[in-house]
Amino acid sequence: MDEFDLIARHFAPLASGAPGAFGLTDDAALVEVGPGRRLVVTKDMVVAGVHFLADDPADLIARKLLRVNLSDLAAMGAAPRAYLLAIALPRDADDGWIASFAAGLGVDQAEFGVHLIGGDTVTTDGPLTASITALGEVEGDHALRRAGARPDDTIYVSGTLGDAALGLLARRGALSDLDADARAWLIDRYRLPRPRVDLGQRLQGVASAVIDVSDGLVADLGHICTQSGVGAELEAGRVPLSPAARSALDANPELMASVLTGGDDYELLFTASSVDGLTADPPITAIGRIIDGSGVRVLDSEGAPMTFPSAGYRHR
Amino acid sequence: MDEFDLIARHFAPLASGAPGAFGLTDDAALVEVGPGRRLVVTKDMVVAGVHFLADDPADLIARKLLRVNLSDLAAMGAAPRAYLLAIALPRDADDGWIASFAAGLGVDQAEFGVHLIGGDTVTTDGPLTASITALGEVEGDHALRRAGARPDDTIYVSGTLGDAALGLLARRGALSDLDADARAWLIDRYRLPRPRVDLGQRLQGVASAVIDVSDGLVADLGHICTQSGVGAELEAGRVPLSPAARSALDANPELMASVLTGGDDYELLFTASSVDGLTADPPITAIGRIIDGSGVRVLDSEGAPMTFPSAGYRHR
Repeated sequence: MDEFDLIARHFAPLASGAPGAFGLTDDAALVEVGPGRRLVVTKDMVVAGVHFLADDPADLIARKLLRVNLSDLAAMGAAPRAYLLAIALPRDADDGWIASFAAGLGVDQAEFGVHLIGGDTVTTDGPLTASITALGEVEGDHALRRAGARPDDTIYVSGTLGDAALGLLARRGALSDLDADARAWLIDRYRLPRPRVDLGQRLQGVASAVIDVSDGLVADLGHICTQSGVGAELEAGRVPLSPAARSALDANPELMASVLTGGDDYELLFTASSVDGLTADPPITAIGRIIDGSGVRVLDSEGAPMTFPSAGYRHR
Repeated sequence: MDEFDLIARHFAPLASGAPGAFGLTDDAALVEVGPGRRLVVTKDMVVAGVHFLADDPADLIARKLLRVNLSDLAAMGAAPRAYLLAIALPRDADDGWIASFAAGLGVDQAEFGVHLIGGDTVTTDGPLTASITALGEVEGDHALRRAGARPDDTIYVSGTLGDAALGLLARRGALSDLDADARAWLIDRYRLPRPRVDLGQRLQGVASAVIDVSDGLVADLGHICTQSGVGAELEAGRVPLSPAARSALDANPELMASVLTGGDDYELLFTASSVDGLTADPPITAIGRIIDGSGVRVLDSEGAPMTFPSAGYRHR
């Protein structure tokens, strides 16, 4: 089964009476909570063996789960406020593991100014499974959406792309040519995303469409195109790379497919007619433009179309 | 590990900066969302083999999960508004199963006036695991709490108790003396709780403390006592029973322990100095009184103290 198909057929109809749910096609939902105020809510779930490995450090599992949710809030331009946690613990989970998991959350609560406000703890015979619901706030009609990109808009992305996908490869034993520091740096990028919470809020009034890169650059740009009713031309040679990713690509140029489709980046991908007024931190790079039509065309440095075995990682 | 202990030690400290989280000791949390308005949020998770059996009808699994969350909103006096769903599907889950699950949610959306507004769908190698976050609304300072019971308050409960606990026993093959209709009725009560959403809102200004009976009558009354700093005397002979439960108890009086501690009732347990003005639907029964001190004393029909092997079902 395909996640998007499954949601479209079975779950989207359940959202048809709630305008702020956007047919379940956006990063988060809006709840009107009074004149001029909108609550932004999002909910992500992770399972050991699918989204992380069971022997990953507990504090990093917790922080990634929280940060993935905060990234969804960032993509809507919302200020994070609070979160709820539900966790299904294997029967052999020990107290030290849970203490480390909670400590990780504590570190990120301080960093992002959010608090745990509720949830549930249950036992499972299966793998560790956890879900966070994050609540944020956005004023008036300022919420950012996937819909809104217009032909001739420039496509921008924050930070660097591909680090997490390459980090996952490194963690699985690949990229053996790379020096130890670069490998460790990429693995850290995979384990601990940096949600662009501040940038998201600053994109209000600037971006015409926004998404966070979780499924992969090509797939997520495709989501913007679908929701906006436009097409996109992406120049692969302009995609911003970290020094570590650059080293990995120098050794093996075929890794570019992982950079463009691997996902788990949690950078903000957005369209705008201009980015005047945005500061240089985090760095913003123009990587293509919105065109009439539909779908995403990826062009290599010579302007030739590139194709990929998979448009993006499916988070299932 | 004990769920309450685990929450108190590891997770409650993470809620210390959020007054509306009540130290994770209440049914749901309050989020201030503007002058005079509070959002009420709660999150419950269920796992196949722990909270239901994997071969239970998919629509009933979905409806129970939603209703358990609505019951938490009811216990805070909130009007339900919307919910988010995260579901980890076993790889062999087929389309028909998911369609039935979604159809069950659709039925209850119509009944309770709520909409799905977001969530996440992932795959698991373990058992089906699902989590719902429900959002409700309450005006001003009218949210009901577990804290607030005062000595000499009367203890009331809605509906009848023990049906779900006896239904679970029947489903496991016990209660063989009972006629088929009574067994089926009890099993239905286990599978499909009736959250007291309307009553919860009508208890604003009436109840001094409220909880929904999920862990078991004795345990949940204990939660009110702990949070209110009082004790309670419960008269077992006054606990309201359905005809089916009465038949089961006539055949085996020892089942009273299951009625008082089995849980999964999702009736509202509350304290009040008076219930003048409450209508007769659903029926409300006085079952004891709040006293100075701490803890719950359960008295049998002769006024003798009763003890139980377990104070309540632990939902893990």
